[in-house]
Amino acid sequence: MTAIDDFFSIIPAGGAGSRLWPLSRADAPKFLHDLTGSGKTLLRATYDRVVPLSGPGRTMVVTGRAHRSAVEAQIPELDDASIVLEADPRDSTVAIALAAAILRRREPDVIVGSFAADHVIHDERAFRRAVLEAAAAARAGFIATIGITPTEPAIGFGYIRAGEPTGIADAPHAAAVSAFVEKPSAEVARQYLAGGHHLWNAGMFIARADVLLAELAIGEPELAAQIEELAEAWDEPARRGPAVDRLWPQLKKIAIDYAVAEPAAERGRLVVVPGDFDWDDVGDFSAVAKLHNGGRRGRLAILGSEGTVLADSASGIVVSQSKRIISVVGIQDVVIVDTPDALLVTTTDNAQRVKQVVDAVRRSGNADAL
Amino acid sequence: MTAIDDFFSIIPAGGAGSRLWPLSRADAPKFLHDLTGSGKTLLRATYDRVVPLSGPGRTMVVTGRAHRSAVEAQIPELDDASIVLEADPRDSTVAIALAAAILRRREPDVIVGSFAADHVIHDERAFRRAVLEAAAAARAGFIATIGITPTEPAIGFGYIRAGEPTGIADAPHAAAVSAFVEKPSAEVARQYLAGGHHLWNAGMFIARADVLLAELAIGEPELAAQIEELAEAWDEPARRGPAVDRLWPQLKKIAIDYAVAEPAAERGRLVVVPGDFDWDDVGDFSAVAKLHNGGRRGRLAILGSEGTVLADSASGIVVSQSKRIISVVGIQDVVIVDTPDALLVTTTDNAQRVKQVVDAVRRSGNADAL
Repeated sequence: MTAIDDFFSIIPAGGAGSRLWPLSRADAPKFLHDLTGSGKTLLRATYDRVVPLSGPGRTMVVTGRAHRSAVEAQIPELDDASIVLEADPRDSTVAIALAAAILRRREPDVIVGSFAADHVIHDERAFRRAVLEAAAAARAGFIATIGITPTEPAIGFGYIRAGEPTGIADAPHAAAVSAFVEKPSAEVARQYLAGGHHLWNAGMFIARADVLLAELAIGEPELAAQIEELAEAWDEPARRGPAVDRLWPQLKKIAIDYAVAEPAAERGRLVVVPGDFDWDDVGDFSAVAKLHNGGRRGRLAILGSEGTVLADSASGIVVSQSKRIISVVGIQDVVIVDTPDALLVTTTDNAQRVKQVVDAVRRSGNADAL
Repeated sequence: MTAIDDFFSIIPAGGAGSRLWPLSRADAPKFLHDLTGSGKTLLRATYDRVVPLSGPGRTMVVTGRAHRSAVEAQIPELDDASIVLEADPRDSTVAIALAAAILRRREPDVIVGSFAADHVIHDERAFRRAVLEAAAAARAGFIATIGITPTEPAIGFGYIRAGEPTGIADAPHAAAVSAFVEKPSAEVARQYLAGGHHLWNAGMFIARADVLLAELAIGEPELAAQIEELAEAWDEPARRGPAVDRLWPQLKKIAIDYAVAEPAAERGRLVVVPGDFDWDDVGDFSAVAKLHNGGRRGRLAILGSEGTVLADSASGIVVSQSKRIISVVGIQDVVIVDTPDALLVTTTDNAQRVKQVVDAVRRSGNADAL
């Protein structure tokens, strides 16, 4: 398997994963956990998945300063030039566009592909096929996204409506994007699945760095200029610090979907390549229970210390991070997350509500546990 | 309220309460917990309930050596002569008959009443009325038990079938006992409730000490002789130790229902007085959830540290003994018992199965947590 020419992977490693509290914490966010029982954290699994695409030494991780040592421990292969440390989180546009701008200065024709640090994909061959097509579309001057062919009427994901084929060389499945759609109702999701024109928005973007930045400059000229200024100073240690101190607090927090993808789609500059592979953003414990492929007691998935979990007629998931004995008796579809300072008990059906719990914990004056 | 003449209360304080694990432990059994949110342990509440019946200084507690200091801390009023320490548990016949034999030596005509340390009764006036009748029957030479008028077709209790009235003076409601019945099926329990002849067996026995011991001697002559020998030595410190060392290991483990009550019933020596009061033996966490009258978050009962429990659309019970944050989201009839070294999660419907968990914990090599 050879790497894609001129390709560089960007892994934005941010996001609190608050629906995965109390496992995911400010100091141990989702991407630093092994949520599938693979033996690798999501970050490491993402890195291992993209390295064959871009080649050794051609992956950049963007993360918060607080996570530097954890990220380096996960990916010792990263050198200083391959980690972009954010002073504080500024949403996905800053993370991806800053990395792209830094890389473009080092390598003007570079094609960048951005892949979140906390998603799960198992079918790496199909993933690679989709990225190859997306890279071909990027080489032709488009911004390409990969839309996942849906397998169920999911209401937890956004959708992309695919339009006409584009006829781009080496990207036979690339289609124009006719619309981005926010998380739909169950009824609408069923229509999408039946219609066959909608794909899950997996937040993967592949583009020439200069094209991506040019598109950003059209809709968000001030942010684009600030990012270029940061990138210009980035590789000179004496200039980087002052530039960050001056510019970072001004950077607009905006998702790349709004700042780049949707405007580019309206101008016909965005194409979508269908991805026929399994994909999940592991958004809540219901997803973790489904994806987990590690320890089990009957129908109960166990993440963490297996030896101390006893189950009798139970199903669902137990996350065992304290060293306590956990006994689960006659309860179905349960979610138990046992950590040294916080315990969550809910059901897989209520997994989305955990985000509200985090707000309640904050209001209760126990923010230390977040 | 005056005490009953010649009456002495015995409180057997034993029993692991293994259906209440991991709250109830070998070193902190059920009777040492406040399971109702009253602010008192079950033992202290029992003591406070019987003192008005027997009068100050006329209550004897029978417990294991390991619980001596905990019992004394709960009932500082007890002097050394009022605590019988068991070398190891020998079931209810030894506990009650030994106390009776010791008391008879001190006071030949004493009437004893035995009341478990871990039952809950709120209506103390109705309780007192029943004990008064039972004491009258005891004075007439019978062994009396109090049977609780059932309020639901419970399958967790044994039943007593009441027969003909006895005509004993001052015990107008006392009836002969025509049968003891083990825990019935739901269908049979419904028939009992409808029929009106069955009462719950609450394990309360009231008798002259000499009558109780004479009945024991008929069915279990060897055990009765051993108990008399122990009692004979009990109040002489120099003799007590050697007698215990020699006799205790030989004492037969048998419930007083089998050793005394059922044989006495067959000989027409046992009467039952109906008790029209609330009563529960708090046999499992379902009972705790029902009886608990302390902290709440909506429909979730909270035993222990309330401040760290957050609930959203949850019902059932949380026992919070660690200092962790406990968040319960969208789960009904749940039982969560959170202790520093063990966590139980089940439902009120499965509360009876917790006893099997204890066996599983023992087999798993974690007996320290029992």
